[in-house]
Amino acid sequence: MYPNSLKNLIESFKILPGIGEKTAERLAFFLINEDEEKTSFFADSILQAKKNIRKCNVCNGLTDNDICDICSDDLRNKQVLCVVEDPKSIFLFEKIGTYNGDYHVLDGLISPLDGVDPDDIGIEKLVKRIQNSNYKEVIIAVKPSIEGETTALYIKKIIEGMNIKVTRIASGIPIGTDIEYIDSMTLERALIDRKEIE
Amino acid sequence: MYPNSLKNLIESFKILPGIGEKTAERLAFFLINEDEEKTSFFADSILQAKKNIRKCNVCNGLTDNDICDICSDDLRNKQVLCVVEDPKSIFLFEKIGTYNGDYHVLDGLISPLDGVDPDDIGIEKLVKRIQNSNYKEVIIAVKPSIEGETTALYIKKIIEGMNIKVTRIASGIPIGTDIEYIDSMTLERALIDRKEIE
Repeated sequence: MYPNSLKNLIESFKILPGIGEKTAERLAFFLINEDEEKTSFFADSILQAKKNIRKCNVCNGLTDNDICDICSDDLRNKQVLCVVEDPKSIFLFEKIGTYNGDYHVLDGLISPLDGVDPDDIGIEKLVKRIQNSNYKEVIIAVKPSIEGETTALYIKKIIEGMNIKVTRIASGIPIGTDIEYIDSMTLERALIDRKEIE
Repeated sequence: MYPNSLKNLIESFKILPGIGEKTAERLAFFLINEDEEKTSFFADSILQAKKNIRKCNVCNGLTDNDICDICSDDLRNKQVLCVVEDPKSIFLFEKIGTYNGDYHVLDGLISPLDGVDPDDIGIEKLVKRIQNSNYKEVIIAVKPSIEGETTALYIKKIIEGMNIKVTRIASGIPIGTDIEYIDSMTLERALIDRKEIE
């Protein structure tokens, strides 16, 4: 029904998550009406991103180079390492603007039920990196879930005796959220982790 | 903060309507994790669509060729012409699957308040086409609004005396919609256009 090249463009948009037939059609019709400058930029961005974006050799974060800007920045605090489960987490933390240490990206989380062992998420690379650095603190910043807990405890255990403080980002009630909307596991955690008001 | 090629990809997605920073980031991260086959297809689809999609010389609909599949299909009913305001409308009607006549796409609707005259929306091309064809009915299928009404009445007037029936698609309450959610102009129209139950 659609001309072939329009059909292909619609199919392309449908590759994306959360984009169904109707939205794909809307986006395709929009795009073919844009200037060629913009459509060329769009197509080129896809090709360049796919071609250039790779994992940082040090932290596994995303970069255009061999080593990412954060790892190669000597002005950052090289005594703190924040361990995340996903390259995107780095950008989320960077947006806050207050953390100035290093990052390390795991390849997911340990999940014995799904057959995901420590080897599968690159723990060895993390441990080697820690051994060859002078970190005083390792912050585990992974999702609060069974897999997240398992991964955090595993890392804690494996770097025990290296005289490094291992911490975990806080779980609890998101700021601005009504308590009535919070599941009881989170509420329980928020109660256990309560802090004295000073 | 983002590597350059990732930043460009995010900016590209932000060109699209209804896609803000967060969604653009989510789509960009998704896409760079897809196979190169898919990302190449995506980029190529954008370039090809922009390059190949043009207006049909006859009806102004979208096509990869000089004349679209519908205009060049001799099996269609060449006695009925459906006038729409947007190339996308053709695909919406084709999806229904019951209309088998021709189409003609106007370049928008007449809107004296915005300075849009009949000349601006290509009425002349429509009239010439009708003069050179054997249409028995012209169906006006534009949006029910002041501009839509104006355009419909103008077309009706200009082809008067050519012995062609001019019709307008029905306005009223969308199927399955509660009457309480319908604006009073639509309700008024639905009342005026009531049909005898047979």
